[in-house]
Amino acid sequence: MNVSVISRVEDTGSFLGETAVVIDVLRATSTMVTALANGAGGIRPFSEPVQAAAECTNQNGHLLCGERGGVRIEGFHLGNSPLEFDAHTVNGKMLLMSTTNGTRAIEACLEAKNIYIASALNAGAVAERLLREQQPVTIVCAGTKGKFSLDDFAVAGLVASYLASDGVKYDDTALAAVLLAQKCDLHEMLASSLHGRRLMELGFGEDVEYCAQINKFNLVPALVDNTIFG
Amino acid sequence: MNVSVISRVEDTGSFLGETAVVIDVLRATSTMVTALANGAGGIRPFSEPVQAAAECTNQNGHLLCGERGGVRIEGFHLGNSPLEFDAHTVNGKMLLMSTTNGTRAIEACLEAKNIYIASALNAGAVAERLLREQQPVTIVCAGTKGKFSLDDFAVAGLVASYLASDGVKYDDTALAAVLLAQKCDLHEMLASSLHGRRLMELGFGEDVEYCAQINKFNLVPALVDNTIFG
Repeated sequence: MNVSVISRVEDTGSFLGETAVVIDVLRATSTMVTALANGAGGIRPFSEPVQAAAECTNQNGHLLCGERGGVRIEGFHLGNSPLEFDAHTVNGKMLLMSTTNGTRAIEACLEAKNIYIASALNAGAVAERLLREQQPVTIVCAGTKGKFSLDDFAVAGLVASYLASDGVKYDDTALAAVLLAQKCDLHEMLASSLHGRRLMELGFGEDVEYCAQINKFNLVPALVDNTIFG
Repeated sequence: MNVSVISRVEDTGSFLGETAVVIDVLRATSTMVTALANGAGGIRPFSEPVQAAAECTNQNGHLLCGERGGVRIEGFHLGNSPLEFDAHTVNGKMLLMSTTNGTRAIEACLEAKNIYIASALNAGAVAERLLREQQPVTIVCAGTKGKFSLDDFAVAGLVASYLASDGVKYDDTALAAVLLAQKCDLHEMLASSLHGRRLMELGFGEDVEYCAQINKFNLVPALVDNTIFG
């Protein structure tokens, strides 16, 4: 079982026949996992906020959500803080979501055979699925505006570390990520990353702590027909 | 003092006004450091073996050296194993060198204000120089054929870890590399990397052990007018 890690979206190549696992731990994929665990019916990712807004019809139980610069998009119902996506707010709703890096990462993987959404919150569940399927896997870190992001890389290593077995073949990027996940504290890595520090400056320190929780949910969101289901 | 790490040559941007530190630990930069420590007069890097051969005049004490696929280039005096570059062989000689990834990495940095050559063997000496100069630094991992290489990344982290101080600002890539260098054994990382395993298969296991030695030499090779001097 070949396991690769790509440290930023810009480096993605072809995924034909592969499984892609998308990680934007601060905060898009942590938020998606939380929303689906709390009963959201599905999530449709959009690269541009205007596209999401154009698809929104309130009578269908749609909620517009997403951020730019870490802050809720004006006129949208929700931002990108996982703490906003409680059961009371999202249960039974279809979320139309646009985030800076997360939705771009998903779009870069559309050729893949399977696309799963991972965060620390559901790393173990995703790894279990991957182990069961035994397909070649590429774990794609969203990164931050085209740059390597320690937060995503650390969680990529967490998922990859659970795949350790006799048959696993890590590429060097996966090896580095696995070593980090094994040797370093996840919350410290998220909090010291550029993105984590930026979120704390914006007052989202609680989000960083929340997103550092490991295996809170037993859920493997997957993209099917442009919608992510839990 | 801003400290960035670039995990493969392909990601290098502009270096104007910066210091670039080039690392191809298995084995080009380890070999360069060893050769200069053993008295070589200088090293001229060439991307193509034929260019090196065309410049070679035996009467001037030239030695042709380099590898393709890890193996000595046919007709060249030396390959790319640091163990070949002893004082008896290289003292007073000018080396014309072409290696797969190392020389490409140097060429990618030519815009930089200063270009230093680093390996585990001289990581501390390079860091001391960088601390004294207090210029923005980009540490460039050669990588292996366009891919992230754990061996180079680990040594980038070693150099960067020595720069830790109140004024240092690491980017996320540097942070990840520093954590690896602080928490993991260097020899284990070199030996488990794809490149390290390939070298061991080719019978160069001793080279991998040699290149994992930390601070064997107190030397900061620098590129001046297309030649590396010790």
